[in-house]
Amino acid sequence: MGRPAVLLLLLALLTPGVAIPVPPAVKALSSLRWSTGFTSRHFTGAKYSVHYILQKVDHFGFAVDKTFKQRYLIADEHWKKDGGSILFYTGNEGDIIWFCNNTGFMWDVAEELKAMLVFAEHRYYGESLPFGNNSFKDSRHLNYLTSEQALADFAMLIKHLKRTIPGAKNQPVIAIGGSYGGMLAAWFRMKYPHMVVGALAASAPIWQFGNLVSCGVFMEIVTTDFKKSGPNCSESIRRSWDAINRYSRTGAGLGWLSEALHLCTPLTNTQDVQHLKVWISETWINLAMVDYPYESDFLQPLPAWPIKVVCQYLRNPNVPDAQLLQNIFQALNVYYNYSGQASCLNVSETTTSSLGTQGWSYQACTEMVMPFCTNGIDDMFEPHSWNLREFSDDCFKQWGVRPRPAWIITTYGGKNISAHTNIIFSNGELDPWSGGGVTKDITDTLVAITIPEGAHHLDLRARNAFDPTAVLLARSLEVRHMKQWIKDYYANLRKKH
Amino acid sequence: MGRPAVLLLLLALLTPGVAIPVPPAVKALSSLRWSTGFTSRHFTGAKYSVHYILQKVDHFGFAVDKTFKQRYLIADEHWKKDGGSILFYTGNEGDIIWFCNNTGFMWDVAEELKAMLVFAEHRYYGESLPFGNNSFKDSRHLNYLTSEQALADFAMLIKHLKRTIPGAKNQPVIAIGGSYGGMLAAWFRMKYPHMVVGALAASAPIWQFGNLVSCGVFMEIVTTDFKKSGPNCSESIRRSWDAINRYSRTGAGLGWLSEALHLCTPLTNTQDVQHLKVWISETWINLAMVDYPYESDFLQPLPAWPIKVVCQYLRNPNVPDAQLLQNIFQALNVYYNYSGQASCLNVSETTTSSLGTQGWSYQACTEMVMPFCTNGIDDMFEPHSWNLREFSDDCFKQWGVRPRPAWIITTYGGKNISAHTNIIFSNGELDPWSGGGVTKDITDTLVAITIPEGAHHLDLRARNAFDPTAVLLARSLEVRHMKQWIKDYYANLRKKH
Repeated sequence: MGRPAVLLLLLALLTPGVAIPVPPAVKALSSLRWSTGFTSRHFTGAKYSVHYILQKVDHFGFAVDKTFKQRYLIADEHWKKDGGSILFYTGNEGDIIWFCNNTGFMWDVAEELKAMLVFAEHRYYGESLPFGNNSFKDSRHLNYLTSEQALADFAMLIKHLKRTIPGAKNQPVIAIGGSYGGMLAAWFRMKYPHMVVGALAASAPIWQFGNLVSCGVFMEIVTTDFKKSGPNCSESIRRSWDAINRYSRTGAGLGWLSEALHLCTPLTNTQDVQHLKVWISETWINLAMVDYPYESDFLQPLPAWPIKVVCQYLRNPNVPDAQLLQNIFQALNVYYNYSGQASCLNVSETTTSSLGTQGWSYQACTEMVMPFCTNGIDDMFEPHSWNLREFSDDCFKQWGVRPRPAWIITTYGGKNISAHTNIIFSNGELDPWSGGGVTKDITDTLVAITIPEGAHHLDLRARNAFDPTAVLLARSLEVRHMKQWIKDYYANLRKKH
Repeated sequence: MGRPAVLLLLLALLTPGVAIPVPPAVKALSSLRWSTGFTSRHFTGAKYSVHYILQKVDHFGFAVDKTFKQRYLIADEHWKKDGGSILFYTGNEGDIIWFCNNTGFMWDVAEELKAMLVFAEHRYYGESLPFGNNSFKDSRHLNYLTSEQALADFAMLIKHLKRTIPGAKNQPVIAIGGSYGGMLAAWFRMKYPHMVVGALAASAPIWQFGNLVSCGVFMEIVTTDFKKSGPNCSESIRRSWDAINRYSRTGAGLGWLSEALHLCTPLTNTQDVQHLKVWISETWINLAMVDYPYESDFLQPLPAWPIKVVCQYLRNPNVPDAQLLQNIFQALNVYYNYSGQASCLNVSETTTSSLGTQGWSYQACTEMVMPFCTNGIDDMFEPHSWNLREFSDDCFKQWGVRPRPAWIITTYGGKNISAHTNIIFSNGELDPWSGGGVTKDITDTLVAITIPEGAHHLDLRARNAFDPTAVLLARSLEVRHMKQWIKDYYANLRKKH
């Protein structure tokens, strides 16, 4: 899989013929990567220790009794044995150190909650590879890469921590995660309520499955972000696709296009153009996910409210194709060349190695089947319908497995989850993933927090001087809920003794 | 596995060297078999239809995409599409028709609850064999025999029923089961609360794992039943073991013993004696489980309150060995020869083929590890400690797998289940399995119902003129809870529309 992870979503989303299945949460994660540099000031110098636990490769069968080493991190600087708590990050599809370094919220609240921080790596990512280098070899080796196995790992780990760390046994544990990790946090509370007193599920699109939400909602939110960030911005992008198509008809056109967009590698055929459009679409999606209110350090640095900056170049859709595409270049250039260092734009730019692209590709082909579509009317993209059959065939070609698109709903309840308690679903309204998230309270204890000016799990990011009031409020609500869960836990404990 | 299922429990329990692991729920089931003839008057003529659904062999992995036919039964005579309900029997380790014919309670309440009755067969039992005749061949074929897979089958089946039966979609489903099936009903509500509005878990020893309860409690309850049923009864049995041991020292002694007990096959060696003691112990256990207040039809017919009848022969422990053992014979004879037809007692008597002894033996060797022990002081048996290591070695020898005794507690929560709702745990105080059951309310909606005069899930049996008041009360409480769940479901449904 030499292909860049950033392309994967749209390769699958917009070009159903490409044999790479949808890996949306890899995309979801991209935002985390971007923030590395920025949040470091909050916990540079904060210490964590690295640990390993032997886990069964298969929690749900006994024929394979093999084990593997799961990695996890502990930061206990602020932990108090008396009245403390354990914040447990339910690791998602990437290197756990990367998540640890990019979830500043946990570090910021550790002292107030007297909390031990635990970051558990998801199997098949980072160093937690059940079969080492062979882990992605074939469907037989990948067979234990499921959300259920990951949740079972978390449960075993919590038991282990409680058994082995003096003082941890009678402390409340809270699951915290963002994006796919947020789904895992919510699902963990649903399936193992005896293990955690509650869960903070940030930007967790638990309803981005089956037909729980419209397949178009994701791209509609991306479009809205651009529409609101500058006059005619989304319209300019909508018109750009045909402009590209018109230029792509001839060799000369391809040459002009390659030059106008300052591509490092000139376009030579239709497939290159297809990739180009996917790469551009992906850029708009990325921008929507990480449209944060302050300057942040991405692969290249980005300005505050980057979409607004991008849209300054896209005010006039009614210009000739050449002008429109030169404007598009300026817009892309904000994202890829804010530092001014790049001499050309690389459409096959690879993503950070912290992302487990192979693993997520497999997960998207099995359990995590998220339908996406565009119609070009409610969104600013070229129309593409969701085609499960083609998707399934691609998965079979690539991994030798077929997706079971209804399974996640069957096992985790879909929209019928009101029997559960103590889950916070937080979403940023700018975040395209909020379309598949829980944005309204379900019950008194299954609560939704929305952050109007928030992009992808802004609330999990470290404190920042430019944080809008809404995210400060969200975080303080989250802390209030967590404190209540902790208080209830200790009250029950006292009652028992 | 030519050995009788009725022996399996004690073969493992009392003779740790025997390579057959503990299958307690097979024992638990024995009681159901006994009732066949008796309850038939209630639903003889009641009609059910037989159906099959294709299930994935592996719900938790994608490498094996094979399917198998799961059998289920539907009885809808009293079902009303308007305001009705679905009572879903979570099948346990046996032929589902046998459960269907032996759960008279569901038939008795169908009309009142306007209920469709569904009886789902547990995979690897009855006709629901994932690999046909090869299902028990080796650990690879048995790998999909777990409670989690069974629960997933139930979930898939309920989805299927709601999708395919007109009128079923917006109806509340209630899980009902007894013994291991009761555990499954409770666990199903815990793990899939979106699928069922509540569960009736009858005589479900969900705490007979790890050290949640004392390993001795089961045999202590058996002993208490005998102690309460006649003067010196348990003491006579306690003394009988040494008497047997003394007779077993010589060939002549073995001859006398074989004759005194009217054994069909004379004892010839130490192992025969070991089997004899196991078989006798198992008889006392069976009697404790099925100590029903009315005459019932077992393998041989049994009188009402059979332990009382047995104890009439065991009033005097202070007699010579010969007399004591002749009295033991009379007692056994009540159980094995109430009809007076038997010419000898057969210590290798086989159990009904409705019981899936192989399957349960495997389950007991993997997830369903229930520790049992005796000390000869608090119980009337020879002392035997629980030895997990030997047990594990035996399992490995027999099935090529090793038990994971903590897993059930990790996944289903052990005693920490208060986050769940709407489960009724019913237990009869005479039932040895009540020792591992929930016999006190946990919350307002996790309620315990105890039936002082009840043996093993008496409440699930069909109405009987000799039912003690306590079981009538229990059933009416159960119906009241179920009606409340149904009412709440429809109230919520109206709120949504």
